Amino acid sequence: MAGTLKGIAASDGIAIAKAYLMVDPDLSFEKKTITDADAEVARLHDALDKSKAELSLIKEKAAENLGAEEAEVFEAHLTILSDPELIGNIEDKIKNDAINAEEATKEVTDNFIEMFEAMTDNAYMQERAADIRDVTKRLMSHLLGVELPNPALIDSEVIIVAHDLTPSDTAQLDRHYVKGFITDIGGRTSHSAIMSRTLEIPAVVGSEKATTSVKQGEMMIVDGLTGDAIIDPSEDQIKDYQKKSDEFKAQKAEWEKLKNERTLSKDGVHFDLAANIGTPDDLQGVLDNGGEAIGLFRSEFLYMNASELPSEDDQFEAYKKVVEGMNGKQVVVRTMDIGGDKELPYLPLPEEMNPFLGYRAIRISLDRTDLFRTQLRALLRASAFGNLAIMFPMIATVAEFKKARAIYDDERQKMIDAGSKVGDIQVGMMMEIPAAAMIADKLAKYVDFFSIGTNDLIQYSFAADRGNEKVAYLYQPYNPSLLRLIKQTIDASHAEGKWTGMCGEMAGDQIAVPILMGLGLDEFSMSATSILKTRALMKRLTTDDMKKLAEKAVTEAETNEDVIKLVKETVNND
Amino acid sequence: MAGTLKGIAASDGIAIAKAYLMVDPDLSFEKKTITDADAEVARLHDALDKSKAELSLIKEKAAENLGAEEAEVFEAHLTILSDPELIGNIEDKIKNDAINAEEATKEVTDNFIEMFEAMTDNAYMQERAADIRDVTKRLMSHLLGVELPNPALIDSEVIIVAHDLTPSDTAQLDRHYVKGFITDIGGRTSHSAIMSRTLEIPAVVGSEKATTSVKQGEMMIVDGLTGDAIIDPSEDQIKDYQKKSDEFKAQKAEWEKLKNERTLSKDGVHFDLAANIGTPDDLQGVLDNGGEAIGLFRSEFLYMNASELPSEDDQFEAYKKVVEGMNGKQVVVRTMDIGGDKELPYLPLPEEMNPFLGYRAIRISLDRTDLFRTQLRALLRASAFGNLAIMFPMIATVAEFKKARAIYDDERQKMIDAGSKVGDIQVGMMMEIPAAAMIADKLAKYVDFFSIGTNDLIQYSFAADRGNEKVAYLYQPYNPSLLRLIKQTIDASHAEGKWTGMCGEMAGDQIAVPILMGLGLDEFSMSATSILKTRALMKRLTTDDMKKLAEKAVTEAETNEDVIKLVKETVNND
Repeated sequence: MAGTLKGIAASDGIAIAKAYLMVDPDLSFEKKTITDADAEVARLHDALDKSKAELSLIKEKAAENLGAEEAEVFEAHLTILSDPELIGNIEDKIKNDAINAEEATKEVTDNFIEMFEAMTDNAYMQERAADIRDVTKRLMSHLLGVELPNPALIDSEVIIVAHDLTPSDTAQLDRHYVKGFITDIGGRTSHSAIMSRTLEIPAVVGSEKATTSVKQGEMMIVDGLTGDAIIDPSEDQIKDYQKKSDEFKAQKAEWEKLKNERTLSKDGVHFDLAANIGTPDDLQGVLDNGGEAIGLFRSEFLYMNASELPSEDDQFEAYKKVVEGMNGKQVVVRTMDIGGDKELPYLPLPEEMNPFLGYRAIRISLDRTDLFRTQLRALLRASAFGNLAIMFPMIATVAEFKKARAIYDDERQKMIDAGSKVGDIQVGMMMEIPAAAMIADKLAKYVDFFSIGTNDLIQYSFAADRGNEKVAYLYQPYNPSLLRLIKQTIDASHAEGKWTGMCGEMAGDQIAVPILMGLGLDEFSMSATSILKTRALMKRLTTDDMKKLAEKAVTEAETNEDVIKLVKETVNND
Repeated sequence: MAGTLKGIAASDGIAIAKAYLMVDPDLSFEKKTITDADAEVARLHDALDKSKAELSLIKEKAAENLGAEEAEVFEAHLTILSDPELIGNIEDKIKNDAINAEEATKEVTDNFIEMFEAMTDNAYMQERAADIRDVTKRLMSHLLGVELPNPALIDSEVIIVAHDLTPSDTAQLDRHYVKGFITDIGGRTSHSAIMSRTLEIPAVVGSEKATTSVKQGEMMIVDGLTGDAIIDPSEDQIKDYQKKSDEFKAQKAEWEKLKNERTLSKDGVHFDLAANIGTPDDLQGVLDNGGEAIGLFRSEFLYMNASELPSEDDQFEAYKKVVEGMNGKQVVVRTMDIGGDKELPYLPLPEEMNPFLGYRAIRISLDRTDLFRTQLRALLRASAFGNLAIMFPMIATVAEFKKARAIYDDERQKMIDAGSKVGDIQVGMMMEIPAAAMIADKLAKYVDFFSIGTNDLIQYSFAADRGNEKVAYLYQPYNPSLLRLIKQTIDASHAEGKWTGMCGEMAGDQIAVPILMGLGLDEFSMSATSILKTRALMKRLTTDDMKKLAEKAVTEAETNEDVIKLVKETVNND
C-alpha cells in the first residue's frame, strides 16, 4: 500500500530496498480428532524434515557470517528435532489420543518446557526450555504451512520491518544485505536505534505502524535523516531519494576528511571527541572515525556475554586490549553497571517493582565488594599498558563515592606493595542521578572528573522510564531544567580544576552540541559514527556565540521547545 | 526468647503487652491414597463446620467494630463454604480418586480459582477467585489442625507481630486491644508505618526478624520513640518502660494544651501546621489535633474504594463534606494520583517495567481528560462551600502545568457562564519531580503555590524506590542535595509572591522541621498526630537561629549525617 510513515530518525542515511517483514505469522490452530493416525504421524515427520533442512541452512549461514560459536545454538535446535523421546511422545499422543499433530506437539512440548522452567535455579535448564520453545515454533510453522521470518537466510538487499529488534535479532542480520531498519516502537535510545548507529545502517524507529502498513517484498524508502519512510514509492520519489542519498554520501565523504584532525571550534578552542564502546571489537570503529579517546567503555559485556562471573584475568585481557589499541589515548572504563534492565543468569538479583530505581550498578558493587575488588584489580593491572581511567556508575551521594574510592585505593596500595606496575589512573564518576548533580560542588572535591550520563539523568530528572512509550514525551534533553543540572556539574568541576565529559546519547546530538560547547563541556563521548559529523559542526561554531546561546537557554527558556527554537535560530543546522 | 530487636521508630509511644503473631502457619500436606472414603468425607465436613463457626464469629466482630459493609466480605466467604457444587465436587473427588480431603480440596478449589482468574476482564470474577483462595486457606487449616491468625477475634491487649501489615490486615484490627505493632519489613513511609501514626498506635517497623524471634503469647515491649523492642522483658525493664510511657503520656498532655493555639516560633513568626488526609473520615482527627488547614487531601480514595469510576456528584459530596467540615480553613485537594503502585480494577493501566517512572497522576489526567474534567467540575462545585485549593501531582514541565491549568480554566469558565457559584480557588502543583524543582523560578510564574511532596521527590532525586529494602539507605531526607532542591523551590515561590508548603513525611519530621523553618517554608502538612508535637517544637526555636542552621546545612554539609549532626548541635531534641 503506497503511503508514508513518520517515525523517529535513529541512524543517518537513506535506504531504498524491498521490505523484509520480521513478524511472526499466526500459529494458532484447532484441536481436532483424527481417524488416520498414520497419516498424521507422516505429517509430523514431513514438518520435522522441513524444519531440520531449514535449520541446517540457517546454521551454515550463521557459521559463515557470525562464526562457529553463534552457530552452536542452531546445532542445539537440530538435536532437539532428532530427540527420540520428544518425537516418540508426540507420536504416541497422536495415536493414543487420536488428535492432530499440532495439538499433540503442543501438549508434549508444553510439558517439557514446563518441567525445565520449573527448575528455576538451573540456568542451563532454563535455556533448554527457551530452545524447545523456539524449535516448536518452527515445527508448528511447517505443520501449518506458514513461513517464519528467517533473517539469517536473507540473500538480497532488504529493509527490515519489525515491531522491535532484540539483540538476538540483530545478531543474525547480515550487514551486506540489510540496507535499513524500520520499527514500530522504540526511541532514539532504544536498543534497535543504538544498534543501527553502531552498524551504520539508516534507521527509523517508533513509526507505530510499519509492520501493519508494509507488505512482504514491497519496495520502500527509509530516510534515517528525517524519520520519514515511503511505502511503494513512485519512480520520481525513488529518483529524489537517490539524489538525497548521494548528497548525504558526499557530505559523509567531506566529514571523512576530518578523520585525522583535532576537534576545534571556529575560534580554535579544542574539545575532546570520544566514543562509547561496548566490547573490544568496537575499537576499530573508533579508530576509523577519528575518535580522540574512549569516553565510556561499558564493562557490562564481560558480565553479560558470559555464563559465569568473568575472572580477573579475562577482564584484564579485555581492558588491556582496549587501552593498548588506543595507543596512549584515554580509555574511561565504567565499573559494572548491572541490575536495572541488565540481568545476569548466574547472579540472581532480587525481583524489584521498579528495577531502574533499585539495586544496580555501584549499589551492587558496594554490597558485593568481592566482585568489585576483582574488577578493580583487573583494571589496575591493565592500567600499566596505556592511558586508563575508571568511573563509578550511579553515584548518588558523597558517602558512596568515598566508599568506592576507598576500596579502589586499598586495592591499588596492595598492588603497589606487591611490586606490580600500576599506571596513573584518574578516578571519576558518572553524573546521572539528580541528587548527585545537586551537590556537584561537594563531589568535585573528591573526583578526578565527572561524566554526565544523560540517558539516566533525564529519566530520573523527569521521573519517566525511557523505555515507556506512554511517557516518551518527557524525554526532554533540551529542557532548561536538565541544562541547569549539566551547567552546575560542569561549573563545579571547573571550580576545582577538574573536567566534565558526557557519555549519553545527547553528546552527539546536533541540537545539544552547540549548547554543550557554550556550557564548557570538556569531552563529548558518543557513538563512533557521530564523531566526524560533530567535528564538522563544531568547526563552524565559535565558543563566544555558543556561550551566549547557552546562557539564554539556561536563563530565559522555559521549555524543551523554546531551546530547540533558540538553537535553530543561532545555528544553521541545515 | 528474651532479647532485643532494633527497628525503625514508626509511631510514637510505648506498648507493653503479649505478642500476637500474624504469621500464616505451614499449610503444606502430602497427597495420600485413602481406603475409607466416608471417614475422609466426614473429616471434610468437620473442617467445614469449624470454618463456618469461626467465620460467623469473625463476621459478627467485624460488624461490631467496622460496620456492616466491612462484614459483608465474610458473608461471601460463608456462602462459599455452603456452596453445594463446590462441596459436592470435593466429595466426589475423595470418593472417585480415593485421595485425602486435603488433596481433593486443593484440586477442586484450584480449578475454580483458575477458571475465575482466567476471566481477566471481569473484576467481579477476579474477586471471587480471591475469596475462594481465602476460604480454602481457612478450610485447609482446620483439615490440618493448625491455627490461622484471626486478628478480628483478638479480645485482650496485644502487640501485633507481623512480617508486614496490609491495608486489609489493619482494617480488621480493634484499636481497643491492639496496643502496638512490630513488623519485619518497611520504613517510615510504608503503609503499616503511616497507619500506625493515623491510629496513634506505637509501632516499630523494619525490625527484620520480629516474626522469627518472638513466640506467640510472649510478653514484649515496643518502643515507638526509639525503634527498640524487648522480648520477654524482666520486671525491672517493664518498670522502666512503664515510667517512660508515663512520661511520654505526660508530654502528650502538655502538647494537648497547644491544641487551640496558633503555631508561632519563639520570636513570634507564624507557620501553618496542616494535616494530610485520605478520606472525609479523617477530618475529626485533624480538628482534634488542632490542624490549621488540610495541606493534602488525597483524592485517590474516591477512585480506589470503588468498583467503578466515581461520579461527579459522588466526588462533589466528598469534597464538600471536607471543606464544610474545615469551616473556612483551607483544604488543598490533590487531583487523582493513580498509577504507580495504585491500581484500579475498572481502569486497566498498561503493564510497566518501572511503574513509578510511568503513566501516573497528571500524566493520566492529561491523557484521559474526560476523567480529569469530571474531577475538576466536582471540585469547582465544592469550592462554593468553603476554602478550597487544587494541586496537580507529578508536574515535570512548564508545558504540563499550563496544559492542566488551561483545562481547569476552561471548566471554570463554563461553570461561571452557566451561572453556577464558584469560589476563589488557588491552583498549585506538587513539587515532587527534580526537573520541576530545577525550573521552580519558571513554574512560579504560573502557579499560585507549590506543595513539596518529599516521598516522591526523594525517590526520584536519589533514583531509589522507597519501597525497596536494598536501597533503603538512599532515603536521605536531610541530604544537602535535597535541601537545595527544597530551598530553590521556596525561594522561587517567594520571588513571585507565592507560597510553598510541604506535604510529605518530612514536614512532620522533628530533625527536618528546624531546617525547613530556616528555609522559610510557609506550610507544613503532616499526619494529624504529629501536629501538636511540631507546634511545641517550633515554639522553642527562633527563625534567626534556624536560618543560620539552614544556611549551614545547605552550603557546608556534604552528607545526610552531617546535617543530622548540625541539627542536633543546634536544637536540643530531647
